[in-house]
Amino acid sequence: MPTPEESYEKLLEFQRTTSVLNSCTSVLRWDRETYLPLSGASHRAEQLALLSGISHERSTNQRIDEWLSECESSKLFSEPHSVSNTNIREWRKNYDKNVKIPGKLVEEITHTISMGHKSWIESRNKSDYSIFLPWLTKIIALKRHYAELLVTDNKSIYDTLLDDYEPGESAENISQVFSQLRDELMPVIDKIVTSAHQPNLDILHKNYSIEKQKLFGEDAAKTIGFNFDAGRLDTVVHPFCTGLGPHDTRITTRWDSNNIASAFFGIMHETGHAIYDQNLPSGHWGSPAGSSVSLGIHESQSRLWENIIARDKPFWNCFYPKLQRIFSKNLSNIPLEDFLHAINYVKRSHIRVEADEITYTLHIILRFEIEQLLITGKLNPIDLPEFWNKRFKELFDLDVPDDANGCLQDVHWSYGSFGYFPAYALGNLYAAQFYDNFKKKHPDVDDEYNNGNFMPLLNWLIENIHSKGMCCTAPELIKHVTDEPLNHLYLIKSLKNKFYPLYNI
Amino acid sequence: MPTPEESYEKLLEFQRTTSVLNSCTSVLRWDRETYLPLSGASHRAEQLALLSGISHERSTNQRIDEWLSECESSKLFSEPHSVSNTNIREWRKNYDKNVKIPGKLVEEITHTISMGHKSWIESRNKSDYSIFLPWLTKIIALKRHYAELLVTDNKSIYDTLLDDYEPGESAENISQVFSQLRDELMPVIDKIVTSAHQPNLDILHKNYSIEKQKLFGEDAAKTIGFNFDAGRLDTVVHPFCTGLGPHDTRITTRWDSNNIASAFFGIMHETGHAIYDQNLPSGHWGSPAGSSVSLGIHESQSRLWENIIARDKPFWNCFYPKLQRIFSKNLSNIPLEDFLHAINYVKRSHIRVEADEITYTLHIILRFEIEQLLITGKLNPIDLPEFWNKRFKELFDLDVPDDANGCLQDVHWSYGSFGYFPAYALGNLYAAQFYDNFKKKHPDVDDEYNNGNFMPLLNWLIENIHSKGMCCTAPELIKHVTDEPLNHLYLIKSLKNKFYPLYNI
Repeated sequence: MPTPEESYEKLLEFQRTTSVLNSCTSVLRWDRETYLPLSGASHRAEQLALLSGISHERSTNQRIDEWLSECESSKLFSEPHSVSNTNIREWRKNYDKNVKIPGKLVEEITHTISMGHKSWIESRNKSDYSIFLPWLTKIIALKRHYAELLVTDNKSIYDTLLDDYEPGESAENISQVFSQLRDELMPVIDKIVTSAHQPNLDILHKNYSIEKQKLFGEDAAKTIGFNFDAGRLDTVVHPFCTGLGPHDTRITTRWDSNNIASAFFGIMHETGHAIYDQNLPSGHWGSPAGSSVSLGIHESQSRLWENIIARDKPFWNCFYPKLQRIFSKNLSNIPLEDFLHAINYVKRSHIRVEADEITYTLHIILRFEIEQLLITGKLNPIDLPEFWNKRFKELFDLDVPDDANGCLQDVHWSYGSFGYFPAYALGNLYAAQFYDNFKKKHPDVDDEYNNGNFMPLLNWLIENIHSKGMCCTAPELIKHVTDEPLNHLYLIKSLKNKFYPLYNI
Repeated sequence: MPTPEESYEKLLEFQRTTSVLNSCTSVLRWDRETYLPLSGASHRAEQLALLSGISHERSTNQRIDEWLSECESSKLFSEPHSVSNTNIREWRKNYDKNVKIPGKLVEEITHTISMGHKSWIESRNKSDYSIFLPWLTKIIALKRHYAELLVTDNKSIYDTLLDDYEPGESAENISQVFSQLRDELMPVIDKIVTSAHQPNLDILHKNYSIEKQKLFGEDAAKTIGFNFDAGRLDTVVHPFCTGLGPHDTRITTRWDSNNIASAFFGIMHETGHAIYDQNLPSGHWGSPAGSSVSLGIHESQSRLWENIIARDKPFWNCFYPKLQRIFSKNLSNIPLEDFLHAINYVKRSHIRVEADEITYTLHIILRFEIEQLLITGKLNPIDLPEFWNKRFKELFDLDVPDDANGCLQDVHWSYGSFGYFPAYALGNLYAAQFYDNFKKKHPDVDDEYNNGNFMPLLNWLIENIHSKGMCCTAPELIKHVTDEPLNHLYLIKSLKNKFYPLYNI
């Protein structure tokens, strides 16, 4: 009979090996998005299917259950939030999930999503919802079935799906915060967009050489903390950040030679994700104790660096003179205030991924409301466009011209990712609450930013968030770090503080 | 009891899956050489070890033996060179090899090579042979042991190792061809290097923008047949070509802004490999019938395009005007004849990888002689430098200044790759013999090259070599295609035809 300690060691090794295997998958995925030749796509799908098959087989291996049982009755599991407790808790949760879902269902979901995603592309390109409708209906039914198999503790179907992205959160809690946030945000947006003092956007849309943009972006990423010895920046169509191993974190962006802001803030966003990934405890790589807390916490890191830091004045006190030197023809006569105003332009618009920092959250609230209705059957997919357009009008005071600019714009539902959207808005909320707490302890940090020193913030994030791995849930972490539960007022305060002066409000 | 056909289908699927797995390894290896961040190296080694462990386990699965036995007594195996015969023959050979080598020995070789390779790097950097000597001794002992376990049919130890690279060849046969070749080459080299008419090399070493080199190189690669929809070109330190799947073949090069020739001929060389890879029968991908014949035949394809085609006049009748347009400042006043002379400069020198087309073969002959002596114990590794220097003097009439420019220059032995070197010279020999045969059937093809049409040659290679997969050995293929066994006279003839006029001989 092995001791609990021996079982724990076996588990550590077994699960780490599965993580190494999954990290191979990440390399293949990264390559698919960056460098894969056109004709290589179908073989790449075959490679990915093979590796995920091997991984799934490992993750349902019955020995995991036996080893876990040994550990769960031992002192390894007795102290909450300890490394071993965290690992055992999460391994158990994942194992129980994995064995509850029959291989046949996994295959059916994978197949349906693959076909559904293709139909979504066509549907969006033609702005013809009827093409996607049967697939969306099927995807919803499959995801419901998936959730029904997993439901524990009388959780709702939606909360069960949410758990894949935001463990420890509930729709009820999120709804409450989101509705308060929405009610406060709407008049703020109104004041900003009706202000007479609007930015001159032309300054962002001159000819900006991509080569120079890249040098500037890499310099800024490095300055705020991205380690290029353990990562890189590549070009893609849909930017993302991915970890391929404990010292290999890759970010991506897309370039526009006629826009200085889009790639740059994309880089800052992905750098925020990457800094989190690079500062997770690498000694625990491959186990929950070395993993990120949730999608929402990950998003808080990207949004903190992108919006709170890189769209604010202290950051540009340091970087704007550099940018002016690099693009002197375009910017030497443009005062910093005008540049700051332009990169913080607010406009009610139809497309989420093009939205500004403030209206973005409203886009998420809309999707969060709708996906709950869809998954619980309260909204029939056939009625989605009408419902979307009506609700969009209420939130944005805009008519939706067509479904490509409405309910067909996002990829998520075609991938079956119900419960994913809240993370984006939670990220904004967490970021503001974390940062408020940090600022209380470092009231003069803006002076450091002026001089290009972002170490105080970086170190605070590492100490309070990154280095903790997955030792607690997001609600526990926010409480632990800031001494109170999630509170929408920090985001409102942060937005007013930055935007009202810019718009003379 | 399954039928032979059922067993064959099982084998096809099982072995193809192993090939898909190995192709994942190829992606990870390609990324390691091209884009892997510095700190990612140790995790990448772990990923590669995991995948090759899984692959090795599959390749020694006892079911392979059972399935093969079913097939071997059936009509699937009765017709030599048929697809099923080829597959069964090669699967059997590989399986028997794999099960004969204990996992412990594989691990020991892998570990020793990894350490030995590091010691070789240090040894070469310091030009201090004593650092590498103990590792070389150990590597030789392990490779001997490896070969002893594999020996069949009274083969020699060296021939057993050679079989990993050149199945069907023997040291005896190669020695005979190489010694005839050497005896004829040495006076040819003497005539060329003592000719009064020597090229002006300055024209190659002006400032050549890498960006423009890349465009020109890609255009040439595409023109001779590289399919960029199923492949790409990237930058590395040590150029190579690799297949990552049936429609994903990647070539690499290194750039020198002060040399128009080095990257370009590197690209032509790797394109030759790639064209072979891209035209193997993709329906048989993942099985021997869809694989290349041998290293030597692969090398014949790279050397044919690099040396016979891309260093000769008809090719440049088409491309030189383009090159002059792109680099008009450097080349507009340089006649084609001068350029051709410069790219065919011949010089006795110490380093194999920098050698010209003619003296290169002598470098290989030296290594082929020495590695046989080392592996059979007739040359003690401690005496390697002295022996190398003496033999080098005889072949090249040059003194070796230090071991970094002598016996420490090549990576191969540090990797345990004994039996690999002959492929390079065999490639030159095969290429000349194939091409001579092609020219007999297409005497006016130079006119096509003048107009940038390389399809006649490409199609001939596809029909006679690429599309055949591994259905015969290299000696069988050369006999089948050219109606005679390997004959050194074709290479001598090809070299004299090109070089003598260039050097007024």
